[in-house]
Amino acid sequence: MWKNNSLIILDQSRLPGEESYLDINELEELLVAIKHLKIRGAPLLGIAAAFGLYLGVRNLNTENYDLLFTKCQEVYRTLKNSRPTAVNLFRMLDRQLNLIVQNSRQPVPRIKEALLNEALLILEEDRKLCDQIGHWGNSIIPEKANIITHCNAGALATGGIGTALGVIFKAHQTGKELHIYVDETRPLLQGARLTTWELQKRGIPFTLICDNMAAYLMQLGMIQLCITGADRIAANGDTANKIGTYSLAVLSDYHHIPFYVAAPSTTIDTSIQSGADIPIEQRPGSEITRVMNQVEIAPPDTPTYSPAFDITPYDLITAIITENAVFHKPYSFS
Amino acid sequence: MWKNNSLIILDQSRLPGEESYLDINELEELLVAIKHLKIRGAPLLGIAAAFGLYLGVRNLNTENYDLLFTKCQEVYRTLKNSRPTAVNLFRMLDRQLNLIVQNSRQPVPRIKEALLNEALLILEEDRKLCDQIGHWGNSIIPEKANIITHCNAGALATGGIGTALGVIFKAHQTGKELHIYVDETRPLLQGARLTTWELQKRGIPFTLICDNMAAYLMQLGMIQLCITGADRIAANGDTANKIGTYSLAVLSDYHHIPFYVAAPSTTIDTSIQSGADIPIEQRPGSEITRVMNQVEIAPPDTPTYSPAFDITPYDLITAIITENAVFHKPYSFS
Repeated sequence: MWKNNSLIILDQSRLPGEESYLDINELEELLVAIKHLKIRGAPLLGIAAAFGLYLGVRNLNTENYDLLFTKCQEVYRTLKNSRPTAVNLFRMLDRQLNLIVQNSRQPVPRIKEALLNEALLILEEDRKLCDQIGHWGNSIIPEKANIITHCNAGALATGGIGTALGVIFKAHQTGKELHIYVDETRPLLQGARLTTWELQKRGIPFTLICDNMAAYLMQLGMIQLCITGADRIAANGDTANKIGTYSLAVLSDYHHIPFYVAAPSTTIDTSIQSGADIPIEQRPGSEITRVMNQVEIAPPDTPTYSPAFDITPYDLITAIITENAVFHKPYSFS
Repeated sequence: MWKNNSLIILDQSRLPGEESYLDINELEELLVAIKHLKIRGAPLLGIAAAFGLYLGVRNLNTENYDLLFTKCQEVYRTLKNSRPTAVNLFRMLDRQLNLIVQNSRQPVPRIKEALLNEALLILEEDRKLCDQIGHWGNSIIPEKANIITHCNAGALATGGIGTALGVIFKAHQTGKELHIYVDETRPLLQGARLTTWELQKRGIPFTLICDNMAAYLMQLGMIQLCITGADRIAANGDTANKIGTYSLAVLSDYHHIPFYVAAPSTTIDTSIQSGADIPIEQRPGSEITRVMNQVEIAPPDTPTYSPAFDITPYDLITAIITENAVFHKPYSFS
């Protein structure tokens, strides 16, 4: 949310214990918030980056376009390097950079204003994208279903009602009888901390489980559908999403449970042919060994491996839901 | 370990932070330790139960066999109800009860002595069983392999070197080049807390991962073999083990990775035809929502589902390793 010339964002790293808001006025503050996952979720990262480009230049004391553009490029690179996997961040940065080029004949203050307006437009667009994803997604949700989801692809991760959770919210609004099984989503517990919090607020019945329980629930016939968000989708439909998504997709396949991905079309990166080319961010091992940054769960000096995302091959994905349509295999988004 | 008329057992609930020992003299102390998983692991539960039957009657002030037998039956039932899934506990209790019946003509003090000696024998037998499991298991371990394991099936869970970890220890001793990927094993983190601790002590290279990362490692070709312990094995080979084992078995199957179970033959329950008849213990939801009994990870009043075990169907198990042999599908243990 943009208010009093600041970007106001709920600090997700403090949920569910504390509902506190970040008041971001400087690029550096935004970068710290992104790196520490106070701001997270592919669409929200895109929105935040768009505001970030504006924040990075708004106090630049110049009337010279070339100086502005040079600074913009610098800010662009800094933001681009903050997280490598989600493509929405890159897209929104590109969109802002293009805007500057297109307005090169405008006076500098006008260009800055345009950057802010574009960021506000991106935020508003994302709200609508979520509604449209929810609309299309609702068509694949049965009248009654137990649904499993991983990580958090809700309002907290977007500018609207969310992607995967947005679909669930829409289906719930239209009176469908849903029960949501929430993967806790180790190591950073976005499911346990954030998805539960959103479902509780909306009064949708849910049950929290550990990630390793999903298979057993499927074996018992307790799950009818799986839906997650996405951080980047390659041209062939291969999808990068929070670590554990691929596991859930394989398990869904084995148990003949449909597996859906919901994301705005801006998450699709047709410049990348397959998932093999999507860079996977490695996170610090302390995120595994120090739960909630509070309690040590392993002996000192325990070696870890902590990929933040994994790749789900397109053939495990029943359909991909965007704001435009429900896409089925073989995927072709152009 | 039995010392100075007490059962001395490492308090596993305090590992890896604290290496403290329980000095158990009363049945009630043992029951609390079992319920709070200070003592855990199918074989160790069997051993502890054998000592428990002795502890429950040793101070009984009578010379009358019938009174002793009635008390024994009461203690038997109490211990039997402490945990429902692992069969070793029931087996060792049955063995002790049979011993009493067989010695019914002996004076009561002699019977008590026999119960203690039988418990000591069971402990010593388990040490040998582990060695033999290690011996047979070593035959299926390649000269060089990355191995994944779940939960803790090591020295901490047995009276010897362990079952699944025992196999790994033997293979390591014979000079095989192993790297162990350790599933942290939510919710109680036996992998992160206990398996890492044992591997570290033995100098075997390992890496801790979250349970939901296993699939991705398999996709990347980083895992060549999977091995776990068991809490109960049905006549057809269906295996109950720590929740998450079934997940790992499905993922192994999907990635064409051999999946082994290692357990003493006392874990095989031929009175049960298939896994469908193995009771699955449900644990308190707070074990999920309050990590290490210290930090809350979910909003208040979050509903949970917390099965302690799951069932891996026999067709997903490449082989079952006992102290007697490496058994292959279709399983026949008689």
